[in-house]
Amino acid sequence: MSRTIKLALIPGDGIGPEVVTEAVKVLKAAVPSGVTVDTTLFPLGATNFLETGEILNEETLNDLKAFDAILLGAVGGDPRDPRLKGGIIERGLLLKLRFAFDHYVNLRPTRLFPGSESPLSNPGTVDFVVVREGTEGPYVGNGGSIRVGTPHEVANEVSVNTAYGVERVVRFAFETATTRQRKKLTLVHKTNVLVNAGSLWQRTVDAVSAEYPDILVDYLHVDAATIFLVTDPSRFDVIVTDNLFGDILTDLAAAISGGIGLAASGNINPDGTYPSMFEPVHGSAPDIAGKQLADPTAAILSTALLLDHLGLTDASASVTAAVTSDLAARGTTRRSTAEVGDAIAARLAQN
Amino acid sequence: MSRTIKLALIPGDGIGPEVVTEAVKVLKAAVPSGVTVDTTLFPLGATNFLETGEILNEETLNDLKAFDAILLGAVGGDPRDPRLKGGIIERGLLLKLRFAFDHYVNLRPTRLFPGSESPLSNPGTVDFVVVREGTEGPYVGNGGSIRVGTPHEVANEVSVNTAYGVERVVRFAFETATTRQRKKLTLVHKTNVLVNAGSLWQRTVDAVSAEYPDILVDYLHVDAATIFLVTDPSRFDVIVTDNLFGDILTDLAAAISGGIGLAASGNINPDGTYPSMFEPVHGSAPDIAGKQLADPTAAILSTALLLDHLGLTDASASVTAAVTSDLAARGTTRRSTAEVGDAIAARLAQN
Ligand SMILES: CC(C)[C@H](C(=O)O)[C@@H](O)C(=O)O
Ligand SMILES: CC(C)[C@H](C(=O)O)[C@@H](O)C(=O)O
Repeated sequence: MSRTIKLALIPGDGIGPEVVTEAVKVLKAAVPSGVTVDTTLFPLGATNFLETGEILNEETLNDLKAFDAILLGAVGGDPRDPRLKGGIIERGLLLKLRFAFDHYVNLRPTRLFPGSESPLSNPGTVDFVVVREGTEGPYVGNGGSIRVGTPHEVANEVSVNTAYGVERVVRFAFETATTRQRKKLTLVHKTNVLVNAGSLWQRTVDAVSAEYPDILVDYLHVDAATIFLVTDPSRFDVIVTDNLFGDILTDLAAAISGGIGLAASGNINPDGTYPSMFEPVHGSAPDIAGKQLADPTAAILSTALLLDHLGLTDASASVTAAVTSDLAARGTTRRSTAEVGDAIAARLAQN
Repeated sequence: MSRTIKLALIPGDGIGPEVVTEAVKVLKAAVPSGVTVDTTLFPLGATNFLETGEILNEETLNDLKAFDAILLGAVGGDPRDPRLKGGIIERGLLLKLRFAFDHYVNLRPTRLFPGSESPLSNPGTVDFVVVREGTEGPYVGNGGSIRVGTPHEVANEVSVNTAYGVERVVRFAFETATTRQRKKLTLVHKTNVLVNAGSLWQRTVDAVSAEYPDILVDYLHVDAATIFLVTDPSRFDVIVTDNLFGDILTDLAAAISGGIGLAASGNINPDGTYPSMFEPVHGSAPDIAGKQLADPTAAILSTALLLDHLGLTDASASVTAAVTSDLAARGTTRRSTAEVGDAIAARLAQN
């Protein structure tokens, strides 16, 4: 059998290009013979915006549709640059792709790998996955301001939640829970304050749970969830939550499990109508860019999610296994970004 | 000089009455001679609601206005009780008081006291205060749903932010920063996504900071702030943030600094138009209620905030000192709720 994966690369800004280079290296080493990875570069991001004045035009967006998947490094420039204010790149590029390509599942697995360090003195087994909704909530850009700059300014932000949008991501989370050993799903929300959205989320989980009698379901307020993430992270298996709570919880989850340098994510359109997009959770870290100081592991683990999404489950598992071995063998010696990529790719070649 | 503090007590539900008893005990031991604490009991909460059908009527709300301060234990019943669904007590009592009495500052100090344990292996010095906005944001109850229970349901939640509301809490935070040694203020928001509210908060902090040249100001996205809370909490001094982000960050802050059993808070109306309300951050913990198992320290530390608010700064400092000594002397012996209160009150009597 021969197959070509058409992969769009958006290396982006800062350390993005460096980590994407290593991720592609590993991806190519991981695919079975007969599978070709055909990459196309899209030089988008803050740097490109400052040069060209464009963030993501309709033509490029349309071109991206033809790909099997997108691998993104990191986008965002110097946060003090006034031309980049208000998350113009994040919203115009990253969120635009998530919304345009209906990435309603933002999948963020969290594992504390042997050999990785947690800031927690007694983390226990950390192995859970956050299913973060990706196309609704306070991320919809449905807000506005009046009387800006006056003492009478009012600035609103609207969180929009629909039965359609909540149900599909909740179903995905239940399906994910069936594949896991502990078969447990925790809804995280703030139902005692955000009663309209909270009630929709809670009723949806209750209704769908009737179809999954084997899945143990519980609920935590978002504030309480942050407590358990630092006092008893092993209580979590699958978390399903909205876009904003998922954003917050997954950074915290990354922090307790070896750091943001290891956190992978997939922005997934499960229907396959649009290409899904894989990216490390970390940002562009302009301060260490171009110095081969960045850890490419999160980007590499994102390719494991990518392979899995494309049905190449063995290749996906072998990337995770190679990363696991590499992490276990990591000492205190500092390796360059490329050295980490080389080491992981070499482990794959051995198989 | 003789002075009477008119104190309204809302012990509430679960462990609330037990911890309030100890807090009052310590408060009475702490006030200087000539000062009388005159308490009036308001039996409000879930238990009262289930008995009487009332949560907080206008008459009671009006009666509460006459007090110098309110001390609240915890409100909320069995979360599985369908009669208490959707945070009816939390919203009808706790949030109603915060909004009706214009508690625009929700003050939540976080300290890792010597002798207390953190789940972090290397917490460093943890000593910061979160100034959480208390009357705006997604807490305003400005949401709604259409087509409830159908596949076409839409549930919205609106975060409302005003120049008036943001400026006053930001000013309070800057004033707080001037009283601290490190004189540092961190705005936490999500300005790259919630652009309308985020811009108002950022511009307000920028504008007010011009009046406080000695205060070092920085900014963190809420997701990044959770990372730093577990990897480098000593970077924080004063945090100013909105109602929802403050809710989330302060539970996490409590978790990393000895647990929710130690976290105190003040819902403050700095103008003095209405009584301020002091409460432990923890909930009513119905599972351990009535067994003398609850740690009253958070409620006791809340009285230190209360005393400080009423200008009794020496008494406030002595409560904190007594708690500090008690925490340092705590071994592994389990003491009852009353024993902890007694021990702290006894230390005050020694002074
Ligand atoms: C960059 C930002 C818009 C983004 C988000 O908030 O989703 C990031 O924090 C993430 O978690 O992927
Ligand atoms: C009980 C709940 C409404 C409340 C809040 O969200 O403010 C609590 O979590 C708190 O932090 O005081």
